[in-house]
Order: sequence, then structure tokens, then C-alpha cells
Amino acid sequence: MVMNTEIFEHLESNVRSYCRSFPEVFTKGKGSLLFSESGRTYIDFFSGAGSLNYGHNPDPIKACLVEYLISDSIIHGLDFYTVAKRAFLEDFEQIILRPRKLDYKIQFCGPTGTNAVEAALKLARKIKGRPGIFAFMGGYHGMSLGSLAATGNKGQRAAAGVPLSGVTFMPFPFGFMEGIDSIGYIEAVLNDTSSGIEKPSAILFESVQAEGGVIVAPTAWLQRLADLCRRHDILLICDDIQVGCGRTGTFFSFERAGCVPDLVILSKSISGYGLPLSMVLMKRELDIWKPAEHNGTFRGNQLAFVAGRAALRYWQGGEFAAGILERQEFVENFLNRNIIPLDEKIQIRGLGLIWGIDLCDCGGGETARLAARHCFQNGLMIERSGREDTVLKILPPLNIPLAELEQGCLTIQGALQAVGISPGQQATNLNPVLAQA
Amino acid sequence: MVMNTEIFEHLESNVRSYCRSFPEVFTKGKGSLLFSESGRTYIDFFSGAGSLNYGHNPDPIKACLVEYLISDSIIHGLDFYTVAKRAFLEDFEQIILRPRKLDYKIQFCGPTGTNAVEAALKLARKIKGRPGIFAFMGGYHGMSLGSLAATGNKGQRAAAGVPLSGVTFMPFPFGFMEGIDSIGYIEAVLNDTSSGIEKPSAILFESVQAEGGVIVAPTAWLQRLADLCRRHDILLICDDIQVGCGRTGTFFSFERAGCVPDLVILSKSISGYGLPLSMVLMKRELDIWKPAEHNGTFRGNQLAFVAGRAALRYWQGGEFAAGILERQEFVENFLNRNIIPLDEKIQIRGLGLIWGIDLCDCGGGETARLAARHCFQNGLMIERSGREDTVLKILPPLNIPLAELEQGCLTIQGALQAVGISPGQQATNLNPVLAQA
Amino acid sequence: MVMNTEIFEHLESNVRSYCRSFPEVFTKGKGSLLFSESGRTYIDFFSGAGSLNYGHNPDPIKACLVEYLISDSIIHGLDFYTVAKRAFLEDFEQIILRPRKLDYKIQFCGPTGTNAVEAALKLARKIKGRPGIFAFMGGYHGMSLGSLAATGNKGQRAAAGVPLSGVTFMPFPFGFMEGIDSIGYIEAVLNDTSSGIEKPSAILFESVQAEGGVIVAPTAWLQRLADLCRRHDILLICDDIQVGCGRTGTFFSFERAGCVPDLVILSKSISGYGLPLSMVLMKRELDIWKPAEHNGTFRGNQLAFVAGRAALRYWQGGEFAAGILERQEFVENFLNRNIIPLDEKIQIRGLGLIWGIDLCDCGGGETARLAARHCFQNGLMIERSGREDTVLKILPPLNIPLAELEQGCLTIQGALQAVGISPGQQATNLNPVLAQA
Amino acid sequence: MVMNTEIFEHLESNVRSYCRSFPEVFTKGKGSLLFSESGRTYIDFFSGAGSLNYGHNPDPIKACLVEYLISDSIIHGLDFYTVAKRAFLEDFEQIILRPRKLDYKIQFCGPTGTNAVEAALKLARKIKGRPGIFAFMGGYHGMSLGSLAATGNKGQRAAAGVPLSGVTFMPFPFGFMEGIDSIGYIEAVLNDTSSGIEKPSAILFESVQAEGGVIVAPTAWLQRLADLCRRHDILLICDDIQVGCGRTGTFFSFERAGCVPDLVILSKSISGYGLPLSMVLMKRELDIWKPAEHNGTFRGNQLAFVAGRAALRYWQGGEFAAGILERQEFVENFLNRNIIPLDEKIQIRGLGLIWGIDLCDCGGGETARLAARHCFQNGLMIERSGREDTVLKILPPLNIPLAELEQGCLTIQGALQAVGISPGQQATNLNPVLAQA
Repeated sequence: MVMNTEIFEHLESNVRSYCRSFPEVFTKGKGSLLFSESGRTYIDFFSGAGSLNYGHNPDPIKACLVEYLISDSIIHGLDFYTVAKRAFLEDFEQIILRPRKLDYKIQFCGPTGTNAVEAALKLARKIKGRPGIFAFMGGYHGMSLGSLAATGNKGQRAAAGVPLSGVTFMPFPFGFMEGIDSIGYIEAVLNDTSSGIEKPSAILFESVQAEGGVIVAPTAWLQRLADLCRRHDILLICDDIQVGCGRTGTFFSFERAGCVPDLVILSKSISGYGLPLSMVLMKRELDIWKPAEHNGTFRGNQLAFVAGRAALRYWQGGEFAAGILERQEFVENFLNRNIIPLDEKIQIRGLGLIWGIDLCDCGGGETARLAARHCFQNGLMIERSGREDTVLKILPPLNIPLAELEQGCLTIQGALQAVGISPGQQATNLNPVLAQA
Repeated sequence: MVMNTEIFEHLESNVRSYCRSFPEVFTKGKGSLLFSESGRTYIDFFSGAGSLNYGHNPDPIKACLVEYLISDSIIHGLDFYTVAKRAFLEDFEQIILRPRKLDYKIQFCGPTGTNAVEAALKLARKIKGRPGIFAFMGGYHGMSLGSLAATGNKGQRAAAGVPLSGVTFMPFPFGFMEGIDSIGYIEAVLNDTSSGIEKPSAILFESVQAEGGVIVAPTAWLQRLADLCRRHDILLICDDIQVGCGRTGTFFSFERAGCVPDLVILSKSISGYGLPLSMVLMKRELDIWKPAEHNGTFRGNQLAFVAGRAALRYWQGGEFAAGILERQEFVENFLNRNIIPLDEKIQIRGLGLIWGIDLCDCGGGETARLAARHCFQNGLMIERSGREDTVLKILPPLNIPLAELEQGCLTIQGALQAVGISPGQQATNLNPVLAQA
Repeated sequence: MVMNTEIFEHLESNVRSYCRSFPEVFTKGKGSLLFSESGRTYIDFFSGAGSLNYGHNPDPIKACLVEYLISDSIIHGLDFYTVAKRAFLEDFEQIILRPRKLDYKIQFCGPTGTNAVEAALKLARKIKGRPGIFAFMGGYHGMSLGSLAATGNKGQRAAAGVPLSGVTFMPFPFGFMEGIDSIGYIEAVLNDTSSGIEKPSAILFESVQAEGGVIVAPTAWLQRLADLCRRHDILLICDDIQVGCGRTGTFFSFERAGCVPDLVILSKSISGYGLPLSMVLMKRELDIWKPAEHNGTFRGNQLAFVAGRAALRYWQGGEFAAGILERQEFVENFLNRNIIPLDEKIQIRGLGLIWGIDLCDCGGGETARLAARHCFQNGLMIERSGREDTVLKILPPLNIPLAELEQGCLTIQGALQAVGISPGQQATNLNPVLAQA
Repeated sequence: MVMNTEIFEHLESNVRSYCRSFPEVFTKGKGSLLFSESGRTYIDFFSGAGSLNYGHNPDPIKACLVEYLISDSIIHGLDFYTVAKRAFLEDFEQIILRPRKLDYKIQFCGPTGTNAVEAALKLARKIKGRPGIFAFMGGYHGMSLGSLAATGNKGQRAAAGVPLSGVTFMPFPFGFMEGIDSIGYIEAVLNDTSSGIEKPSAILFESVQAEGGVIVAPTAWLQRLADLCRRHDILLICDDIQVGCGRTGTFFSFERAGCVPDLVILSKSISGYGLPLSMVLMKRELDIWKPAEHNGTFRGNQLAFVAGRAALRYWQGGEFAAGILERQEFVENFLNRNIIPLDEKIQIRGLGLIWGIDLCDCGGGETARLAARHCFQNGLMIERSGREDTVLKILPPLNIPLAELEQGCLTIQGALQAVGISPGQQATNLNPVLAQA
């Protein structure tokens, strides 16, 4: 069967990108599986870039959505009061905030992560009255000018066409920078009256830099960062867009450090079904917004409220979180036992269900590309990240069945061997069923 | 029945705004009607700020959505190739582009209008290699830093917390500026080698400034603008987010001027159901994007493709457009016959189904606020826009039944009388049924 | 005799410029005359771009300088208290400020005009706390980034290599902009809450745009500008670098309008001898500087204080000012009687002893270049200014002997004829003595 | 005798600063001595902030100046070719450039250091086409917006009133930053495609940060910096305004490292007499300026050419340089033997004839202020620098007589003892003659 993609090539801008890595026309998704028009099935280790933590089309959420749609409930509501939003707010407080003793207020933004980053930076600047923001090398926060200014990637920055200002980049503990005391560096900059770098309103961080190449900030580092912010009267903003909603094992990624950011940004999996939604959480006393100072037509995506509320139920009781840890253990063990032995120059990094296999020292970006392609040809969707795209990023749904998780991991192992990373043996076709469906 | 809004006040940020003008908890919507938990029904002259041109929950679209959801079709797909996107693209070309002889390529952006504006400005700067953009006084383009820089509103700009640069504001034919040759002004600036204003990559315009107060650019002005851009090698970008998708009587708002912008930005009603979606159309030869130079997690909102495709059917044949003109005629007549006579200082502006009643010279913003509130109390949802919010903006669904259109207009008439705008007679309660439901 | 300029071409950067228009090696100057190594003498209608209002090496000033040098008085004194500065300050107050009832305080800046512009803009922003400045199309204020941002010239701006921000350009009454109500335009921008243009801290203006092409702002326009600033709480800054110190007939160029700017910038002729000096005058209550907030190594140029003080004596009594008016009358008459008749398309503009002959409509920049070259070959130094350098700028010392003034004017007339601007007759060699010395 | 400073307080802006540290009205200067109206004499350890490397009013230079003035030679010449400039250029090439095998071209800027920094940064950006510049924490480069953006001092930056952009600050080997590999840091930033920091056009450095607190960059560090620039295609710009012209023992301060910067900025002592002058040296192939792209009225300060040429004679033969080394040795010995023993927490840094006594750990800025005041009261002019002004900066004329050098050093020793820095003994009045004149 020939794949009909003509119209895309004819009509869709060259800016399209993932379709180049995954050349299929997709039809359906269920759980950890994706289905294509060509009849193939893929295990999903990508999860919509972190938007599908509960898998594709989970039935409990789907039921709520269908019912909501059928009943002609309100779909587009700007920032009206609606029944759907009310229910979401009530459950978010009950299930997420209260058990964690968090007293946040919530702002619904235009339903993209970047929009919430923009809102958070605006609010921080408004609160502290200082234009500067510190962000971290390797960080990714979005593509609109405000968040792009805080994003490290050179090519994406260049596409702005204007100088990006207002953000100073600080070292993140990785590579050369891991060898220096990066928190000490920031502190020295702040204490030096001639550093040329003004005190910022806020420090914006990811506890795990996902796009940056799955760089996990050490817990002690996060704690020192929070402490530094507190001592210097700087707001701490956690961008939990990709690694929040359970990705690292707890609902918020910062829970492992026991710190409470002043602002938290959520998007991606917060709707539970891949529907657009984004939010800024802010400590109660920081809510100095005036009405409509930041707005947006789709900031009340009612379907996303409905789905998001249904998704919160996963967090009732500890079962779901326990499941993540179980899977984390599996992946960690697999990587240590099956992948590292392939080549000791492979770097493994991760936490919860976000893991990176960094091939920077054994083949680099091209090898990673070939490995990812081999995976896809053998029924596994996996994306690359990091500088020069050298990192295979394992990002499955948090509730992926263990068998599929193992299958996917084996496919990666096979792919690495197939591209020549191997202590001696050849890669074999590990997934004939899926690959030839 | 007491309205339960406690959780909103407790948990939702003060930035919320429309809920203050329309203090109800909404439950359902159908066609031109909105229903609230308190049992009331409202005629909708707001249409989700222009996102509901086909009304609430139109059945033909709804059916497609429900079917799509039930079948576990793919919901979140980034910029994968999907069956839903393919169908949307095919129909968009067939129904919209080809009949209008437009050879645009399409970029799907993060599903907010502001994200598409950001993308369009990036692309324009990339194409021409000049950082500058011209935008117009009174214009509104969004809240992220790139689009906010092109937005005129003082308060919204101030909330940025950083200087907004890269955009120069030019006079739009309104108020004092209507008295000068604004295109001549722009031309003089461009021709003057000492104007201090660098030649821009693009001029970004709305053919009708909706948020600006329903300011309709004269057709000849639009033509001169397009001609000026052509002669000076400047890209012309039409922000058709609010007044595209039929709002002015034709699918694109610029059709009346017979010009073809280099880039067109669509959002709001393009999904037909109030679901988040946004797109940039660009002339084929301008698609110089490299893969992923602008991206975003929700840029492929599959549900919106499904709904958007279904919405395109409204544009098959000329019936739908004819319906808009019929309603335009009704509103125009009504305003001329029933509203202007109330006070000759009322200014009426509009086109298609976007009309403004400007009370700047008869009571101003406060009178407009009272009038809108009176409308709401009498079963009509209507919003204000313009400087100091002096303009009542009539923005009903494009297929609103004539009876409801009339009912809404009469409610406005009554409200104006109730707030004291009247040549002598008192306002009467015009909508007892709706108001007391 | 061959001109020895090898070392310049070998060692001096290509950025050098006037030496290209005036290819001579100059040796001495006296009064209105310049002498070159080749033995030629030139009448100076350029006056060091306005730095030599009292002519070259005027004896009364020279005597003071020589005496000061010989006595080993302090030469470099930063912002120390010195005897020379004290004497200058006392006389400046006595001779300039007090008779004009001006209560200004004085800041000595790094001894360049651009440095004083930088200081004035900083102070204005500090006072009002708003980053924006309004400047005028056609204006010239200097080459360092702060003043360059307020300078209109395209090529000079482009050389910055970074976007220049913080300044908004407003129409100056010239060309197309003369046809619109430019003060009304500014007022409309300020009053429009959606103009996209924030209220500035200050409006920076030249009462005569010298580099811009000798554009004289109408007196009523200046008064309206001052009034607008007052009503909108905006500081008014007069850049009197080129047209202050008597150039327009009064010491300050704004005296003709009867307004008192909040800040005044002086440089060029303030030292009276062409020595580097610059100052910012500020209304007493605006002096909110903290010590050293703006500094510079050469801000106390003692020789310039000595010369500047001696130069102030020219302003004791009304004789000097009367002399300017006498010369103004001569030039004006000459231009009207001898130049305009050559071609009615010649535009004449001016005031005091700054006059422009604009050839934009009869030959443009190239004709002006040839005419200026012809002048130089015939013993007159004259420079061009304005867009495309179409304007011959008459800028002689304010005390130029009338015979030399006439001689120079006749040389211009001859040059215009020589380049073909003539109602019939040919140009003749008008200045054989000077030209062939 | 009462000091008459009324007019300064009445008329001069509060921005004045050094006059507050040195409350005298100065009259004359000769060699290393300054004389005040009150009859006192001061040894000058300040040298006009580095502008008087050859002392006050050196006779050989003075003679040239007087002769030049008397002869009515041209004083103000913009960038005309003049005899004075030619002679300066010839000698500069002969005496400075050729013996050092440097093939620089020369640009004369507006006669302030900051103007030359502006020019150098413009040129660098023009050459490389990248807006960014790297500068160093602790660096000082001037007060106009372009150079201020590269200056570290917080208070001075704040006075800009606008965000300063286009410059990224890098660690200079001092304090905390001395403990990290700062060149490695820069290299890591450049190599990281996600550092968020774009590759700059140039790196701007001082080999000794004078204002920063007399921080001497290690020679090996300078060499690594030059090497890094070369490998990354980045221009290296040496700001030698304060520490060039022999201050560190060689004419250019970078000679000790054996590297050749692409651009060098000179000002302050280049005229030899404290007269305003500044220059940019650029490698021949980098002179891509177009005529007049950077200009300024006083860029050809003829008196400064005359004096500067005369000053170059100091550099003929090795005697002058040898004299600096002799004095360096004296100061270094004195500091080690007489100052450090006072308190081991005193930090001594320096080179050539720029030395800092850093009291940051023994009393800080206030102690330094009292010590400097005590010096002044006892006939020594000395200024403070560094963060919080904790560093007494020894900056005498390079040819200061040894007896005066010793006298000044003893005065410092006495002052430190007087303010309580002492291992036991009391300060005595060391300079009764000078102090009580």
C-alpha cells in the first residue's frame, strides 16, 4: 500500500518536522500503541512529547469527553465561569494541591506551554519590577519571543530574527559546567556589584532538562537553587511542562527536592488526553494580576477541563505513582544491564519514566538518528533530544504495560546493535510481529 | 438559586476577566444560545470573541467529533501525518483556496492566535532579513512578547515588564488619523532616508480592527496598502484571526479589497467548534522554513482538524455567505433606523456581522458598561471593545436565526434607552421571556 | 607642489570623510580664512561644522589660552574644582543665564556633543522613569548608541550593528510631513491609549535641523511643542549643539520661540576656539543626578573653559548679535536676489547664519556635490547636508567680514552656474585671487 | 583663606564627584605635583585617572603647544588632513607601531574613551555581522549606551534608564571566578549549541581591570583568551584606555602576553598632556569602514595631535620604559615590606605603575575612604576603585621622581596606620611640609 502523503508535501509548510522522523500516516492510538494507515502498530516511547502520560485515548477519560460533547455542554468559554472548569478546579485542589500542602492559585493561559511561560515571566517581572530573568543553558521553554528568549537552542533562537533579550543564561550542571559549582557561580554573579548582570525577577528552571538531553538536576542542586532564590528575593519558577504530571515519579517534578517554587508551569499531560491546556500556578500572595492583563481566546478549553479532571483520578491513592516507580526500576535495570554493556561510552541519564541514552561519545547525532530510525522500522516510536540530537529519549506513557515497555527497550537494544554499537554480536530483528504487521 | 462560584474566587487568578462581565456559571450552548446553571438563556452576540462563527455545538460538526472520539482515532499528533489533518488540508484547498485562486502553503502553529502571529513575524523577518515590523495603532495581535509588541493597548503592553521592540506603529484611518493621508504617511517614512525608521520586513494589519473598536479600513485604503507593500518589497500580513472565517461576509476579510496578502493568520473560528487551532498561510515561494524552526506541542490538534473540516462544508455553495449578507443588511438597517435616532452622537461602524456602537461621545465607557450589563440582565451577551471600552460590539454567530438577531438588537436598543440614551421615550423591558427564564 | 597625504591613506582608517571633500593639507586658520600647505586660502563657510562661530583662532581667546598654558595652570582636571572652571561658570551665569532669566544648572560631560546627548537622555529617563524618548525624523544627535538611537540617518543607524531602541520618531514639519499637523499627530499618539507608543520621558528636538538639511521649525510649531510637553508632563530637550551659541541670531536657538526647554545641550562653539567641550543645562529642580552617575575622563577640559570664558565676552552688549542679524540680512537678500532667480526650483531655507540651498529638485545630490567641489576649487569651503546631501549649507563664522561673506556667496552663485543651474548665462570664474593663490 | 566654591555648588550639577573627594580649588600642576588655591601642594597618585602618564604640563610638550597656538595653526579640523595630524601619524608609526611589528590602521574618534569603545564595537559587529559582544565582569568601558552595556558597575548601569543589551558578561579571574577555569567556561559556552548565548563578534577586555579594582589578568590567561578568539573566529579588542601608554611598563599593556589584539582602544594619556583624544587601532584588513559611518565634531583635536606627537618622544630609546620598571620595583617592594606587614589581610595587586591596596577584608570601603582622605589631608591625592571602593589605587605619573614616589607611599602607610590598620604602632604625620604648605 502506497502511503498517501502528497497533500502534506504540497500544502503543509516545510516547517513540519516529526513527520519526517516518523513517515507514516497515523490513524488511531490506544494506550501505548499507535496505529498507522499502512497497517503497522507502534509502541509509543514518545507520548506526544510528554502530552500522553496516561496513554492514548484512555477509556475513563474518553467516556467523560463523549458524554460532555453529546450533551451540548459549552465547548468554548474563554474565561467564563463554567461547570467544567469548576469541577476541574475543585478536584485539582482536592487531589493535587491539598495533599501536598500547596497553596497555589491558578491561571489558565492560552493552551500552549509557551503561553504559560510567557504569562509566568510577565507576572514575575510585574511582581519584582526587574526586567531580568535567569534561565539555564540547555533549557527549553517555547517558541514565542518571551519564552524563546529563555530557550537555549541556537537554531531556534536564530529563527527569531530579532535579538532576544531580558534573559541571562546560567550554567546547568552538565558537561563542563558539571565540573564547576554552578550555584556558587550564580551566587557570585548576584553578589558582585560589578558583574554587569542585574538581579533578575526570577530564575526559570526545569528539574530535568528534557529537550536539553535528559539532564537531571541533582536534588541537592535544586535545594541550593531554591535556597539561593529565597535569600536573594528572587522568584523560583519551575517549568514542569514536560516533566510534571508524574513524569519523574511524583505529580510535580520538584517534589523530590522538597522545595516549593513560587510559580509552576503545567501543560502537555495536564489534560490527560493530549488536548491543549496550560496553567500557571502561583503562590497565593503573588497573584497581583489585574483582570485581563494576560488573556487569550482559548484559555478556557472546556474539553480539556473535562479530560483533565478525569485524569486527576489517576492520582487518587498511591497506585499510579507506584506503577511509575515499578517501570522506572525496570528501565533503569534494563539500561544498566543491557545497554551500557554494549559500549561503556554510552551515557545513561534519567528518572521516573524519562530516560536518555546519550550516544555523544559513540557515534553522535548521526548514529542516534540511525538507531531511532531502526527502532521505528521495528515498531518503536522514539525521539531524540539534546545537543546535536545525540540522545535517545525514552518517554513512554506512565502506565505502559510492562510487556510493551520491555518490548520497546529490547527494540532499542537491537537498534543500537544494528547501528554497530555492540561488544561483538550482531543486531537481530527483535520485533518481527510489530514490524511487519 | 445561589450561584456557586466560590472555587473560582478562591483558586483562579485575578487575571480572569470575562466572568466579571458575565457573572453566570455556564452549562451548555446551542446555536446562538448560551445556557447557565441558574436556568437563564442568553442570546450570544459575543461568539467566543469570534471563535463561534457557526454557533455553539453545531450538529454537523458535533457528529464528526463524537464519531472521531469514539473510534479511538489519534487525538494528539504533534505534526505527524494523520488522516484527520490530511482530510482537513484536502478540503481547505478544495473549498477555500482553489476557488479563490490562492496558492498558499499552510503552517499549523501552537493552537492560539498569538502563536500564529509569532510564527508569521518570525517568517517575515527570516525572509526579508530586516528586524522591523510595521503594525497599526489600535491593532490587537496577542499577548506573547512577539505579538504583544505589535499590539497597541497600553495596559497590556505595560504588563510585559520589558520594553517591547521591533515594531513601529503607523496611523490607522481613525480619529485624528482619519484626517491625514495615512498611507502617504507610511510612504513618506519609507522614502525618507532620515526618518529614523528602518524599512520593515512586513506590515501587519487587520482589515477591521475588532478589539480596537470595530474600525473598518476603507477598501481603497487596503488596496493602497497592498500596493505600497508591493512597491517597497515589504510583506503584507493579514491578521484574520477575529474577522476571517466569514465574519465580514467573505471567508477572508481581505477579499473585499481584491488583494492577496503574502501571509494570512487564521485562528478562532477556523475549527468551527471553538476548539483551539491556528494557522499561518504563506505564499508558496515564501515557505523558507527549515524543519522545526517554529514548533509547539499542540500544533496538530486533531479534534480541531476534524471539526474544522466539517465546518468547511458551510462554504460549499454560496448559501452561507448569502446568509451573512442578509443578516448584515438587517443589522445595518436596525442600527440606522433604531439606534442612531436615539442620539446622533452615537457612531455606528461595521461590516458583515461585526458592528460597533460607539458611545465615546455620549457617555463613554461607563455608559457602555451599564448598557452591556443591562443587556446581560435582559438575556443578551454582548462585549465592549475599543479605547476606553466605549464600543458595544455586535458579534453574533454568522448563522444566527433572524428572530434571535432581532431580539438581540432590540435588547441593545432597550439597554441604550435604559441608560438614558434616548430622544425622549423610556426604555421598556423588551425581553421578558429570556430575561426571566 | 605635490600634496603629501600618503601617510593618511596608509594609516588612517577609511572612515575619514571630510578630507575627501576638501583634499588639502591644512596648516593655519584665522578668522574666516583657512590656509593650506599648497599655499591656497579658503573662505570658510563650514566653521568646523559649527564649532567656530567666532572664527579661527580669534585673538582675544588665543591670548588667554597662551597665557594659561605658559603659566602651567592645570590642564586636566576631571571634575575637580578649578580656577578656570569657576571663572567660566561665573561668567556663563552672568552673561548668558541671568539676562535671559534662566535658572539652569550645568553638567560638564565628556567633551563631545554625543556624550552630552547621552547624559541628557539618561537624566530624562531617570527623572520620569519612562524608557521612551521622542525624536524627530531628520534629526541628528550623535554616533554613540544612545544618541544614534535618536538620529534619523539610515546609513549611520545601520552601522550600529544592533537594533537601536528606546526612541520613537515623530514627523518634523518638512516635505510630506509639512502638510500634516505634526504637533496634532504627536498629541493624537499620546492621547490614544492604543497607539502602541508609550508616553516618553522627553522630546528631543533641534529648532533648526542642520544635518537634516537646514530645516527651520516654525516658531509657532516650537511653541506648540513646548506647550504639548508641558500639558503631558514630558521633558523638552533642546539639542543646541550646532545651532546654539548664536548661530540663529540669539545665544540659544529657542529664544525666538520664547520657550524654555527643560534641558539644553551645548557643545561645538561653546569653547569658542574649537576645543572639545560639551554641557547639559537642566532646570534646577531636575538635577537629581547622584555623584558620578555619568562621568568621563575629559569632562573638565580646562583649556576649553579658558577659551569658552573668553568667548562669552562676545555676548556682552548687543553688538555681536546685531552683527549676526546684519549678515543674516545680507545672505537672505543674496539668496533671494541672486540664487533663486537661477532656477525657481531651488529651495532656500535658513535663519541667522545657517542657510541651506536645496538642489533636490534641480539636480539633486550629484549636482550639489559638483557645486561644492567647484566652490572649493574656487576658494570656498562649503559642505552639503540633508537627505541625499542635496543641500549646500552656508555656515560661516558669525563675525565673518562682510566682504568675505559676499565673496563666498558669489562663489556659490558661480558654482551653481558652472554646474548648469542657470536661466541662460554661463558661470564665470568669480574668485580668481583666492582660487589661484 | 576660605575656599570659594560657592558657584560650583550653586551652578554645577550634583553629578560632580571627584571634587567631593578632593575638596580644593586647583590652580596649577607640574610634574607629579598639583597646586591648590589654598596654597597646598599635593603629590599626584591619581594622574587624571591615567591621563597624565607623563605628569602635569611636561615642558617638552608644553613648548610645542605654545608654539602651535601662537602660530595660528589650525585648531579645529574635524577629519581634515592637517599638518599636525600627519606628523602625529608618522611618528606613531615610526616610534610605536613599527618597532612592535604592528600593522594597525588608525581611527580618530570623538575625543573620549567611550566614543572609541563605541566605534570599536560598531566595527566589530560590522565585520562579523553578529550583534553580541562578550565583556568581563568587573570591566569598565564608559558611560554612553554602547560602552555602558559592556561596563559591569551596577549603579552606573542602572542610570541608563533602559535595559542594556548586546553584551554578555563572562567571568574574569578574580574572587570566586578565580577558582574556576574562566577561559574553559567561555569555551564551553561557545561550544554548547544550547547555551542560549550566541557567538559574539568580539571579546572586549582590559588586561588590568583598573576601575574594577586593579585586577591583573594572568599572562597565561591573556594568551589563552587570544587563542580562543582565534580558534572561534572572534575579534579580540583590548581596551587600553587606562592601562595603555606605558602604564603597565610597556606601551601597550598586552605586550607582556605576546598577543596582538584585532582592535586596540587608546585614549587618556595618548595626548600626553591631558588633552582629549581617542583612537581605535585596527588590523589593516579589518578596516572595512565606509566614510563617515562613525564621526564626531572633535575627532581631530589638533592640539592633542601636537601634544601626542611630542609625547611619543618619551618612547624613543628604552630609557622611559626602564624608568617605569625601576618605579614598579620600588612600589612593589614598598608594598610588600611596609604595607602588607600592617595587616596580612591586605591584598596587594599590580603591575608597572598601577597598584591596588585592597582593604576589602580589613575595613572595606569606609576604611579605604578614610585612608584616602587622610592621604589627601597629608598632601597625597589618591583615588579608590573596585567593588565597594575598597581599593586604594596607586597611579602616579610614570616619570614621578623617586623621592616623591617614596613620599607618597609613606603617606599611604601613615594613612593606613592612622585609620587603625597596624600591627601595633601609631601613624605619625609623615608629610608635614607638603601637608601644611
